Amino acid sequence: MSFSTNMRFKFPILAIVLQIVIIILFGVFVKYDTHDHSGPHNSTHEDNTFLNLYPLFQDVHVMIFVGFGFLMTFLKRYGFSSVGINLLIAAFGLQWGILMQGLWHLHGGKIEIGILKMINADFSTATVLISFGAVLGKTSPVQMLLMAIIEITIFACNEHLAGYLGASDTGASMTIHAFGAYFGLAAAAVLYRPGLKNGHENEGSVYHSDLFAMIGTLFLWMFWPSFNSAIADPGLNQEMAIVNTYFSLAACVLTAFAISSLVEHKGKLDMVHIQNATLAGGVAVGTCADMNIGPFGAMIIGFIAGIISTLGFKFLTVGIQQTKR
Amino acid sequence: MSFSTNMRFKFPILAIVLQIVIIILFGVFVKYDTHDHSGPHNSTHEDNTFLNLYPLFQDVHVMIFVGFGFLMTFLKRYGFSSVGINLLIAAFGLQWGILMQGLWHLHGGKIEIGILKMINADFSTATVLISFGAVLGKTSPVQMLLMAIIEITIFACNEHLAGYLGASDTGASMTIHAFGAYFGLAAAAVLYRPGLKNGHENEGSVYHSDLFAMIGTLFLWMFWPSFNSAIADPGLNQEMAIVNTYFSLAACVLTAFAISSLVEHKGKLDMVHIQNATLAGGVAVGTCADMNIGPFGAMIIGFIAGIISTLGFKFLTVGIQQTKR
Amino acid sequence: MSFSTNMRFKFPILAIVLQIVIIILFGVFVKYDTHDHSGPHNSTHEDNTFLNLYPLFQDVHVMIFVGFGFLMTFLKRYGFSSVGINLLIAAFGLQWGILMQGLWHLHGGKIEIGILKMINADFSTATVLISFGAVLGKTSPVQMLLMAIIEITIFACNEHLAGYLGASDTGASMTIHAFGAYFGLAAAAVLYRPGLKNGHENEGSVYHSDLFAMIGTLFLWMFWPSFNSAIADPGLNQEMAIVNTYFSLAACVLTAFAISSLVEHKGKLDMVHIQNATLAGGVAVGTCADMNIGPFGAMIIGFIAGIISTLGFKFLTVGIQQTKR
Repeated sequence: MSFSTNMRFKFPILAIVLQIVIIILFGVFVKYDTHDHSGPHNSTHEDNTFLNLYPLFQDVHVMIFVGFGFLMTFLKRYGFSSVGINLLIAAFGLQWGILMQGLWHLHGGKIEIGILKMINADFSTATVLISFGAVLGKTSPVQMLLMAIIEITIFACNEHLAGYLGASDTGASMTIHAFGAYFGLAAAAVLYRPGLKNGHENEGSVYHSDLFAMIGTLFLWMFWPSFNSAIADPGLNQEMAIVNTYFSLAACVLTAFAISSLVEHKGKLDMVHIQNATLAGGVAVGTCADMNIGPFGAMIIGFIAGIISTLGFKFLTVGIQQTKR
Repeated sequence: MSFSTNMRFKFPILAIVLQIVIIILFGVFVKYDTHDHSGPHNSTHEDNTFLNLYPLFQDVHVMIFVGFGFLMTFLKRYGFSSVGINLLIAAFGLQWGILMQGLWHLHGGKIEIGILKMINADFSTATVLISFGAVLGKTSPVQMLLMAIIEITIFACNEHLAGYLGASDTGASMTIHAFGAYFGLAAAAVLYRPGLKNGHENEGSVYHSDLFAMIGTLFLWMFWPSFNSAIADPGLNQEMAIVNTYFSLAACVLTAFAISSLVEHKGKLDMVHIQNATLAGGVAVGTCADMNIGPFGAMIIGFIAGIISTLGFKFLTVGIQQTKR
Repeated sequence: MSFSTNMRFKFPILAIVLQIVIIILFGVFVKYDTHDHSGPHNSTHEDNTFLNLYPLFQDVHVMIFVGFGFLMTFLKRYGFSSVGINLLIAAFGLQWGILMQGLWHLHGGKIEIGILKMINADFSTATVLISFGAVLGKTSPVQMLLMAIIEITIFACNEHLAGYLGASDTGASMTIHAFGAYFGLAAAAVLYRPGLKNGHENEGSVYHSDLFAMIGTLFLWMFWPSFNSAIADPGLNQEMAIVNTYFSLAACVLTAFAISSLVEHKGKLDMVHIQNATLAGGVAVGTCADMNIGPFGAMIIGFIAGIISTLGFKFLTVGIQQTKR
């Protein structure tokens, strides 16, 4: 992972200045969420809330750092930088996300950190990491950090606006919807990027790079139910979000494999189709995951997502590549 | 991952037809398990049940998709297809498993999906994935899908029969036993398959393939306590299942390393021994994991499993290979 | 992974004798912790305790077996032996740790196994695995097993002493401190070991070895909040331990990337810096993780840890290498 020489001072100075600014802002604005323990609720119930959601937070954490990090390693040239820069951007993004999202919801002039704030901070990095996929290898770490600042700030505003427009009780649900819509658009930008397979020159590397990329794919695929349910309303809504995402993802795998095998030369499966299309089931069901759409409704969404995503990737990519010639 | 040309239409048509049939059956039979929230129990307790077991479900999920997927990557030739086809078969199998297991336990003509149903659906794929190891590279995806249909249907019947024969209160326990017995037989078929090491031609690939396979091995090894305890009776039985599996697996590692070093030429360790034998501890303790066998009882089971599995693998494999000459 | 011929009988005999001794000691001293269920507490609450902490235990388990196992794979020559021997030593160490720690806390002459005992057993292996990094490739499995016996015995005594010196209510906290201090010293021994990069001869291997090592790094980085909080007092202290570690680690990433880019030739990032320095944030905040240091206090600790660790690694390593010439 090498930076051009003119980066030598720009990047370290920017990174350290940003970190110092964040520490100062944290010193002024951020404190622990201790209301859980001094409020009218009994403490046992609230302890459970933090620890009950902590495994879902860790699942999301694995998706952000392992999932997105390794998803891009099939681009051999950018393999390590993918995982390394992914770590840098996400570690910065979650701090910035705490501040940007928190400033819209101050309590007594303070941002109070609990498990939901941490989950949302991880979420806010996801949009950046997805855009990151589209520009991989074309931008410097300095540009990536600046992109993260802008994108997370806009994301936090969108999210606040979504919550503001919705009725108070559906606020949480609207947040997911706004996120899901944004996420879907960003995902599309990644899925249909041109020249994705040009890095595949050395067969041996492809073999191992594909396996590394499958680590990313699988952890995203497996933990997507946690992603879609982590900030849902507790109880039945949260459980429906888990169940719906589970079945949508399962249905999506079958159609993605089927369509990939159909459109590829000689019925070969294209692993990039598999990777992208299997995830389409999680993205597509995201906006209505916590609703009573029924397990079969979730499956229909996954079924269609698998088809559209694979066809879209196949023909849009080919179209773009032909245009470029 | 390439299919022969005559597969071009067979596989996609089968996959899509199966998925459509499953969606229709889900539309007719499957709904969310909402009893938790409207029943006589208070909702907080039941919410906890779903979220309390959700981390164990995710551990099992990781075992199925990452564990079994990467376990077979040491067969270099089938590396990606191992992980990819594993995903296809498991994603189909869990949907089919929900239906086959659920049809034996209808409530008002419906299958009600909760966290235990999801764990059992993942379980039902495990038997197929293990058989999959024995036929890797010899069967087409079409054959794999058909095998999954047949095997999961039989598994669901066996499981129901086990529950039917047992007294009502030990039903859950019997289910585990039946599963464990089945599992053990299937595991044996994998462990002692001939020609396992013939793929090891290129030293460089072996090095990396071994590391990929260790990802599978370790996630299976680490999360086996969740596998053996996820559907155990809550409370002490579930805790004993976790503790017993934890110690059986630990004891098994030492004897597997010891015996492997003893029987190999010049005291070299054979990594395939390590992989298979370490897992034997989890399989062997599976049938009595939730019983009061004592931590030292669990260790004795792991101790013996490590010895038998490594010796069996060494001498049965050699025998078969000599027979073939 | 090959042993010299004189190892042929030493290692298997030692391993099997040790395992038999442990099984006998377990038969005499170890039983399940059933107090939870027969005590004055209601059983639902206590069930929750085991299952509430179980996900944190599994995070620690992943750190021990995947995290430490893969962290060392960047030393290509020792790649598989790193993951394999790590498994051997940790599986032995956790059994020995249960005995050594438990003998100081007998209840009616028995060691009662619950989830906290299992977490502590995993912890006790961490010190050995860290020392293991410093001697990788220089010691035989026999020496490693003997080292594990000695080191875990001393660790258990230190831990007991720390608990004895502290006031009763801060016992748990003191245990973490003692562990943290020990851990820090051991970590330093690893971080500043000479000749770390000499294995990097083949560019192709470096690429893949770096990715394997990043698997270790990321699982350690992601789950460190679980490591620092798993045995903290339930409630606010445990939550502060999670929040503090989360932010310390995030801040540490930025300064480690910045300093690495600054001190390296032409602003190149050294991946070994990234790996070690990012973890420094977790180690540094470990001793005070469950205290009310504020999120910004945790960030300052991570900020400084990232700088010191990267500078230390760069200049101490270089110094040692020059001395050797």
